[in-house]
Amino acid sequence: MVKVCIIGVTGVIGKNVAFKLARADTVDEIVFFTREKSLSKAKGEIYDMYDALAAEDIDCKLTPTSDYKDMAGSQIILITAGAPRKEGMERSDLAHTNAQIVYNYAKQIAIHAPDSIILIATNPVDVMTAVALEASGFNKKRVIGLGNHLDSLRLKTYFARRLDINSSEVHTRVVGEHGERMVPLLSSTTIGGIPLKYFIKDVKLDLPDIVKTLRNAGNTIISKKGATEYGPAYAISNLITTIITNIHKILTVSMYLEGEIADVEGVCLGVPVVLSKKGAAMIVPIHMNDYEVNKFQIAANHVRELTNEVLERLEK
Amino acid sequence: MVKVCIIGVTGVIGKNVAFKLARADTVDEIVFFTREKSLSKAKGEIYDMYDALAAEDIDCKLTPTSDYKDMAGSQIILITAGAPRKEGMERSDLAHTNAQIVYNYAKQIAIHAPDSIILIATNPVDVMTAVALEASGFNKKRVIGLGNHLDSLRLKTYFARRLDINSSEVHTRVVGEHGERMVPLLSSTTIGGIPLKYFIKDVKLDLPDIVKTLRNAGNTIISKKGATEYGPAYAISNLITTIITNIHKILTVSMYLEGEIADVEGVCLGVPVVLSKKGAAMIVPIHMNDYEVNKFQIAANHVRELTNEVLERLEK
Amino acid sequence: MVKVCIIGVTGVIGKNVAFKLARADTVDEIVFFTREKSLSKAKGEIYDMYDALAAEDIDCKLTPTSDYKDMAGSQIILITAGAPRKEGMERSDLAHTNAQIVYNYAKQIAIHAPDSIILIATNPVDVMTAVALEASGFNKKRVIGLGNHLDSLRLKTYFARRLDINSSEVHTRVVGEHGERMVPLLSSTTIGGIPLKYFIKDVKLDLPDIVKTLRNAGNTIISKKGATEYGPAYAISNLITTIITNIHKILTVSMYLEGEIADVEGVCLGVPVVLSKKGAAMIVPIHMNDYEVNKFQIAANHVRELTNEVLERLEK
Amino acid sequence: MVKVCIIGVTGVIGKNVAFKLARADTVDEIVFFTREKSLSKAKGEIYDMYDALAAEDIDCKLTPTSDYKDMAGSQIILITAGAPRKEGMERSDLAHTNAQIVYNYAKQIAIHAPDSIILIATNPVDVMTAVALEASGFNKKRVIGLGNHLDSLRLKTYFARRLDINSSEVHTRVVGEHGERMVPLLSSTTIGGIPLKYFIKDVKLDLPDIVKTLRNAGNTIISKKGATEYGPAYAISNLITTIITNIHKILTVSMYLEGEIADVEGVCLGVPVVLSKKGAAMIVPIHMNDYEVNKFQIAANHVRELTNEVLERLEK
Repeated sequence: MVKVCIIGVTGVIGKNVAFKLARADTVDEIVFFTREKSLSKAKGEIYDMYDALAAEDIDCKLTPTSDYKDMAGSQIILITAGAPRKEGMERSDLAHTNAQIVYNYAKQIAIHAPDSIILIATNPVDVMTAVALEASGFNKKRVIGLGNHLDSLRLKTYFARRLDINSSEVHTRVVGEHGERMVPLLSSTTIGGIPLKYFIKDVKLDLPDIVKTLRNAGNTIISKKGATEYGPAYAISNLITTIITNIHKILTVSMYLEGEIADVEGVCLGVPVVLSKKGAAMIVPIHMNDYEVNKFQIAANHVRELTNEVLERLEK
Repeated sequence: MVKVCIIGVTGVIGKNVAFKLARADTVDEIVFFTREKSLSKAKGEIYDMYDALAAEDIDCKLTPTSDYKDMAGSQIILITAGAPRKEGMERSDLAHTNAQIVYNYAKQIAIHAPDSIILIATNPVDVMTAVALEASGFNKKRVIGLGNHLDSLRLKTYFARRLDINSSEVHTRVVGEHGERMVPLLSSTTIGGIPLKYFIKDVKLDLPDIVKTLRNAGNTIISKKGATEYGPAYAISNLITTIITNIHKILTVSMYLEGEIADVEGVCLGVPVVLSKKGAAMIVPIHMNDYEVNKFQIAANHVRELTNEVLERLEK
Repeated sequence: MVKVCIIGVTGVIGKNVAFKLARADTVDEIVFFTREKSLSKAKGEIYDMYDALAAEDIDCKLTPTSDYKDMAGSQIILITAGAPRKEGMERSDLAHTNAQIVYNYAKQIAIHAPDSIILIATNPVDVMTAVALEASGFNKKRVIGLGNHLDSLRLKTYFARRLDINSSEVHTRVVGEHGERMVPLLSSTTIGGIPLKYFIKDVKLDLPDIVKTLRNAGNTIISKKGATEYGPAYAISNLITTIITNIHKILTVSMYLEGEIADVEGVCLGVPVVLSKKGAAMIVPIHMNDYEVNKFQIAANHVRELTNEVLERLEK
Repeated sequence: MVKVCIIGVTGVIGKNVAFKLARADTVDEIVFFTREKSLSKAKGEIYDMYDALAAEDIDCKLTPTSDYKDMAGSQIILITAGAPRKEGMERSDLAHTNAQIVYNYAKQIAIHAPDSIILIATNPVDVMTAVALEASGFNKKRVIGLGNHLDSLRLKTYFARRLDINSSEVHTRVVGEHGERMVPLLSSTTIGGIPLKYFIKDVKLDLPDIVKTLRNAGNTIISKKGATEYGPAYAISNLITTIITNIHKILTVSMYLEGEIADVEGVCLGVPVVLSKKGAAMIVPIHMNDYEVNKFQIAANHVRELTNEVLERLEK
């Protein structure tokens, strides 16, 4: 029996992840964890989802709760709780407020679901991953942030459309900070396993422009519809089902580094990781060119600094 | 190429239908039709959905527009536009306001997509179906209301859980008004094709209580989360994919009656219909007991009266 | 981890069940059990299937063996071993030869996989189910024969085509002997939950002709292509996945009766059964008319007699 | 409406392709084309498959015929007819016999289905592709041989298992002859888009051994079970559904070369190709190292020579 717990489930991301997983065939029970004042709303979501599941003859147990004990037995616990990012706000602005929230939940998870994998979606996600790692005391393989997976998906789609090729043929990644200092790895982008530079010899890629578009993708959506909703939710669902089904895909998530890539250490950052049912099975030894290494280290330094600042101010 | 147009796509039902269909493998293009002032919001939804589709390697064209010409070539046009139902409000309270909206859209559909099938989700849906029929001048087989399909799904789920049986084994229907005067057809409910009364001889069914629960299902969700969202959206998606894939399932939708069932005529009401790619292929000659016939006629009289009142006040 | 063992896996039915299950997403390991002399052939099947699984990115462990110990841990053990039915041969001609084979395997299953569910596909299947029940000493809920499930599927398809309706709307069953004395239950056939007689009032159904066509369906295929292959294999896969996924569908399988239906007892016969992960959760109290009851009892008497004869001659 | 025609449908490959496509959701009609003497067998297959489709509520029209006119309207026509390869036999031994068969069918296809795409599975496939190209007079983009797609799938699976990684992360190809002179492209093998050499720095790959295993894979299965069946059938189904669904994947198929890769021309050979609904949309400009280029040219010379020999002896 596979049980997943979502903290902050009445938020727009949380509820969409829940609804996606409920229809995913791989999860038997979803715990809708929320503060007591939102419990009625969580129940409303559940009744509404049950109606939709009936339309597809799908059965999944949805449990509303605000009791930490109901976390017990969860294979994965997703933290989406926190103040949301508003238009124009940088992810780091949220850091101090959200760190306290994540810290408290991670402490409770360590008590009530000590064998679970913690997945962080709260922003700024690289910093929050470090906070959850510290609070839980878990092995770093079991504390994972959403990181650059959505950024990577966006870049993949960009190339698939531009080259008119099935997106499963495109392997490309964005690493580094999930935010301003993200690093798209063009040097190791391949199409059908063939390096981009051989695939179209005369392709002109405007690197700064691609980075800018990627960085703004979320803000553009927020400015138009008020929040990002489906994109992050489906990227998170991807991570969760990849872990549960133990299929050993390589996705780009935020993890604590100890020198595995570009000698960066002491910080959580987006890197390619083989995901298994045990969490992060292996950090993939990606090869970057000098330009990319430099950008990656800049991201590392920025996130490390913010993380340290945040950790110091925490009420433990 | 299958093209579906959703009018009122920035509403909570419309956007969820769009997102469901985008992932459904049977639709190639979805037209996001909305008033000009909501066009930016529609674009935000589209960008957000494209991100989610990328996470599943799915490709579907999503076209934002407020130009009636973009309706052209749509196989199905769904009208979800209208003022939403608030907690405690009866569906009929909305009738006059929404009738004018539906009337105007149906007129445009008749001009720009004269071969399409019109699907109505705007409430009160039985009345709105009659309005769209009048405005479009379409054959009645191509003007269909969501009707009691969601009510029927809820009743099916109720029996599947109560009897601990797969819901595909349960055949049950709610007919009549999609609202207060709905009629659950217990006399023709079967489990695995076996009449309910043989399946469990000593079952005690509290008819008024079941009807009350069904009638309140929507209101309960509205009171808790502010709106119904996934349930109606998935019931509508069900209708649309059943029509597109031409699989000849029997679903309970609102249609104009001319004496096919219980001698009721001159009104749109929820009845079991075989759906095909041409719309309503056939009204199924359901057998009701006297009690059910009586309730069905009461619903018919009520809806007919309201429909006539609404039609008279329309600005044509 | 779900493990299924197939005895007689190099036969045409066995290998098709294996290949279907390997792609089914619900099974983690399939034990290809065969006599030692066919072990190389079993390995050839496995290599060939792995190639096909690679084409769909599917992973399933396929284990060739002729060692009874490898049955251990199987949730379901399917017995397909036995001499095949040749054209024109009645299923009962095979009884004595196959009974000894099934008896020996069921004994070994009781030793090596005492908690498994035994599924019998060897013909004549009603008799073989009784033999396996006797040999294993299992509770009758865990010894199930393929029975009339395939016959029922054929009748369902017949009505779906004749009425131009989706087959999921048709509930109909064939009970009794899986062979000459099968009994199609026209009196309780429903379309969308509506009794056949209401669905088309003027339908003319030639009962003897339908029964004849159903009875000959297998022989027609055998006369043309030498054996039935896909039909039985997919019917069996259906039973297995229904059991594994615990979805509580009602399928028509052969089970030992103790008066649950039409007062028939002391014989294994095809009846509607709710299948769960524990096997046969419940025999459904189907309602037959007098004609059907009579035919059902004739089938019971015939199968009971043959079963007793076979059991007496077994070398235990 | 998508229609596919399979010539040689009573053979073990043909019938497995048919059965796979019948369940594939993307094909509406399959023409079972066979010589008149096998027509009864084709009907037996169809009845058997209809039984299996009923078990999954799937509907697909299966049409038995030996009349060329029934090819009309097919989007794809698959030729699997020809003498089968026996154990130990080289693919080229079959060339002269099978060339005449393929030639005659391709002539008929040009008459009765002039807009179709011809897919060749008859061995030796590279030579037969050239024969069909000559006989049909079609544009080379519409004459495609199975080529090294199955070999590529096998190599992909090999790496996925060896590295314990999801096979969707592995991009690798075998090009050249579908036979003795196949060329695995290790230099452009990537894992998650990362070159193999970076993924595991200390990996020891025994190239001659891998090639030997790949080359023998088919023979091993033939020696054990008498024929390859599921592997080739699923590789072919892959090509067909990729073409029909127009998803622009890059698969390795046999195509007539005019200098697109390694300056090879005047021969059909396995190369990576973007497949679309128009056939071969584009030959991918793969980059090989010197060793691979040399092997590729050796394969080209061998196949060109055999093709010329075969074309000369044809009775036109």
